[in-house]
Amino acid sequence: MIALEEKIRKEGVVLGNSVLKVDRFLNHQIDPKLMFEIGQEFTERFKDKNITKILTIESSGIAPSVMTGLILNVPVIFARKSKSLTMVDHLLSTSVYSFTKQQQYEIAISKSLINEEDELLIVDDFLANGEAAKALIELAQQAGAKISGIGIVIEKYFQQGGNMLRSNGFHVESLVQIESLNNGDIKFCHKMEVH
Amino acid sequence: MIALEEKIRKEGVVLGNSVLKVDRFLNHQIDPKLMFEIGQEFTERFKDKNITKILTIESSGIAPSVMTGLILNVPVIFARKSKSLTMVDHLLSTSVYSFTKQQQYEIAISKSLINEEDELLIVDDFLANGEAAKALIELAQQAGAKISGIGIVIEKYFQQGGNMLRSNGFHVESLVQIESLNNGDIKFCHKMEVH
Repeated sequence: MIALEEKIRKEGVVLGNSVLKVDRFLNHQIDPKLMFEIGQEFTERFKDKNITKILTIESSGIAPSVMTGLILNVPVIFARKSKSLTMVDHLLSTSVYSFTKQQQYEIAISKSLINEEDELLIVDDFLANGEAAKALIELAQQAGAKISGIGIVIEKYFQQGGNMLRSNGFHVESLVQIESLNNGDIKFCHKMEVH
Repeated sequence: MIALEEKIRKEGVVLGNSVLKVDRFLNHQIDPKLMFEIGQEFTERFKDKNITKILTIESSGIAPSVMTGLILNVPVIFARKSKSLTMVDHLLSTSVYSFTKQQQYEIAISKSLINEEDELLIVDDFLANGEAAKALIELAQQAGAKISGIGIVIEKYFQQGGNMLRSNGFHVESLVQIESLNNGDIKFCHKMEVH
């Protein structure tokens, strides 16, 4: 997705050799117009699926998910990381390890929101080692729902998450794939590129 | 806002005499179309302001904010509740007490995202005792920005936040105001209602 790649080139910041900071348009400040374009792109890439709901995780998955949900006209459910007094329903839960926050945490969804008839699109901002995606898959499977696809805004292709998900048969669409972040330089994968 | 009031009547659940659970369209499952309509309504209510950015707090403020930002064509910044490895900039921070989560927590924004030239619209899902709004005002003031208005999806009018903010001179627009939640019954305030 060209507009996203340009935005990353312009405003992304590399920290170390593996962390890409996109706090100026996705993870802290959000560019709503870009999020809408991301929603259009996910809609196009999953147009042959009969998606009934989008499943994501708070907080950075919410903006791209809600724009995709607006265009697809389906609800968005975000898995929650901390319990609220209002979460009194039966819960489905699992645990996730976050490398960027360096901690293990539980995520949960209300059991009543997803069922066996749902065909889910899982959406997240990043795919690195696949920890968050695996946890969302686990919740979807606990609910008995079908997973129609996994939409990722930025895939760090040099980490193992994408490979792990694809080799398990999931349809993963990443709007950009990053080949490496070595020496502060952002290299994108271009499947069609002539070397 | 009639569509929102109808949604609350249909899908809101009262817990005790003061908690309204709206997990089916705002706080856990999100209705993207309703969020877009909320964005249109905030845009209409603040149309005479020259808003440059929207400031909200993760997670439930993000969906209404990003739709409002899409229509107003301005960026959205969400204050973060936990630190990430990518938050390496100078931070502005303050603390909030959450009644629904029964804990005190720090929220922070990167100093670089808001400055003295900004005219902010603060957006949040609920206004009860005004703790989150007060914390967002505090962050905006630390940045030296002007606060043009405060847009609230659901105001619990029987609690003190709205009164406190208005008596301090803030322009607060709440899309619905709830008069009481006693005995499981949701009563809305209607200024124009004939008694």
